[in-house]
Amino acid sequence: MIQPVCWTDGTLELLDQTLLPVSEKWLQLTTWEEVAEAIRRLAVRGAPAIGIAAGYALVLAVWGVDERKEADSAFSEASHGLAAARPTAVNLFWALKRLEGVWRDYAEESVDAARGALLIEARRIHAEDVEGNKTIGRHGAELLPTGSSVLTICNTGGLATGGYGTALGVVRSAWAEGKLNRAFLCETRPLLQGSRLNAWELLQEGIPFRVLVDGAAGALLSRGEVKAVLVGADRIAANGDTANKIGTYSLGCLADRHGVPLYVVAPLSTVDRDTPTGQEIPIEERGYEEILAPLGRQAAPEGSEAWNPAFDVTPAELIAAIVTERGVLRPPYEQAIAAAMA
Amino acid sequence: MIQPVCWTDGTLELLDQTLLPVSEKWLQLTTWEEVAEAIRRLAVRGAPAIGIAAGYALVLAVWGVDERKEADSAFSEASHGLAAARPTAVNLFWALKRLEGVWRDYAEESVDAARGALLIEARRIHAEDVEGNKTIGRHGAELLPTGSSVLTICNTGGLATGGYGTALGVVRSAWAEGKLNRAFLCETRPLLQGSRLNAWELLQEGIPFRVLVDGAAGALLSRGEVKAVLVGADRIAANGDTANKIGTYSLGCLADRHGVPLYVVAPLSTVDRDTPTGQEIPIEERGYEEILAPLGRQAAPEGSEAWNPAFDVTPAELIAAIVTERGVLRPPYEQAIAAAMA
Repeated sequence: MIQPVCWTDGTLELLDQTLLPVSEKWLQLTTWEEVAEAIRRLAVRGAPAIGIAAGYALVLAVWGVDERKEADSAFSEASHGLAAARPTAVNLFWALKRLEGVWRDYAEESVDAARGALLIEARRIHAEDVEGNKTIGRHGAELLPTGSSVLTICNTGGLATGGYGTALGVVRSAWAEGKLNRAFLCETRPLLQGSRLNAWELLQEGIPFRVLVDGAAGALLSRGEVKAVLVGADRIAANGDTANKIGTYSLGCLADRHGVPLYVVAPLSTVDRDTPTGQEIPIEERGYEEILAPLGRQAAPEGSEAWNPAFDVTPAELIAAIVTERGVLRPPYEQAIAAAMA
Repeated sequence: MIQPVCWTDGTLELLDQTLLPVSEKWLQLTTWEEVAEAIRRLAVRGAPAIGIAAGYALVLAVWGVDERKEADSAFSEASHGLAAARPTAVNLFWALKRLEGVWRDYAEESVDAARGALLIEARRIHAEDVEGNKTIGRHGAELLPTGSSVLTICNTGGLATGGYGTALGVVRSAWAEGKLNRAFLCETRPLLQGSRLNAWELLQEGIPFRVLVDGAAGALLSRGEVKAVLVGADRIAANGDTANKIGTYSLGCLADRHGVPLYVVAPLSTVDRDTPTGQEIPIEERGYEEILAPLGRQAAPEGSEAWNPAFDVTPAELIAAIVTERGVLRPPYEQAIAAAMA
């Protein structure tokens, strides 16, 4: 199983996803600032994986700090710093909140005890994610007719999570159950997570796939071979509106037009009940160069401008179901989400 | 004005579009085989520009050949060879047919006279295209409300035509008339004609633009700023169905959903009345490497497969109008096309 985040005794090891598949380089990080930087520059990415990395980063923040006041202030500084790394994926804030709760619970204990409890909680977030993904995979595979081909966007596999995947986890499960014909992978510009990362994962497991340019999704869906569009989520609002990789909204519109269901596949940690609708989800805009210079090679002439939102919002009415570790949620999502989280 | 195709006394000069905007290299071609190869590898691309280049290539085929039988056979070989260069853009076949008509008309004359007549016809095709484009530009600009932003795909400018452009010609005309706010350019994977070529053209004329990834079109259209989607055409069937750059069909679906008109902008030479509907248009599939290795740099791991149709077909019902040099055609297109071509 691909495990992009590994904790070993005071060091967080991250597989640098910006370099895949050309080179497999592991980063050895020992400070929370290094982890925040890795999140910002997408060395670790994917909403669940960001949450997991942020949990361990808070452990690093108090690693080797034994004085309580000093540790409190280091913890709080790290928590603020990590929260500022990326704005859209809510799992980041969710993980920080879980560790903040533990830190508060241990306010009267020794720093050593508190740190131990933090590490247990960070490991638990990690393990829960992997377990949850496998359950999600089974639930999702049940939705697919035998002999299905599916269409995905971005990387939602082991690299984006604790180690199994959300939408790509469903692909894995469907393949294991003999239900999958083939996965079509949107290459997912600007950063090509589809062709770089999904292809890398699927090739290792011998799951058949084809990469297509994002613009070809409409033509592909019109052919009738694709039976479901499977996407991950960076944040799901209380009403089911979902922020995900730029291009997901286009897929939602195209799937709807062709009568193909679009399934959002995500752990419940991606749901943000404090955000009522998709309109309130902050959308990160990134630099021009990701668009104008693919893979670092200049395409557009100097002086060109770009529009580079990293995410878009797919409204609930375009989502046939949300597949979670607690089952398949159907509209109306407000109620289904509340019931699943109860 | 950008003139990507220039004839000078036995040499066809082509601006190599595969290298733009990084380098501006002119190819000096003296045989029809070189022109066919330039068409195949997209050194010259864009349906009208391909037609123009093919016309001159037939002149090259009989350049310096003075014996009638030899010239006839050279002409016929070149005509077949050029027709095999790319299958979708109909302007290629249309230009070949025009020159074949001239060659037949001069069957009883000296080869020298026939060659002179060919060159006149090739130049006429070229000049007609430039003139036609300007008329198209004016017709198209009339469709846009003042203060419009528009969305385009692929390069449909001077580089794709005799020298002014179809969809990008409308952008030029609208800008000249003070009606344009800004052009949004789909980068147009796999070959990035939007970010490489459209940006290069618009930057030279100071027309404001932003490049976006193709997947972002849905998110952009949902914002309401874009008042029209302008696309070119590689072949328009008798019923108005239009083959154009892969991604155009997705734009058609997305424009329809958001109540934004999609206009096909093309000279009548792009209409193929022998093709009844879009279903009969042959769609070129190109190699995996264009997708798996953007700008020649490997993205996907070795062994990955891709699906790479160069074009898709937008059905007539998604096309608000076809803007031609003989005016703006509205549905039903069968009749409108017949009237315009009468």
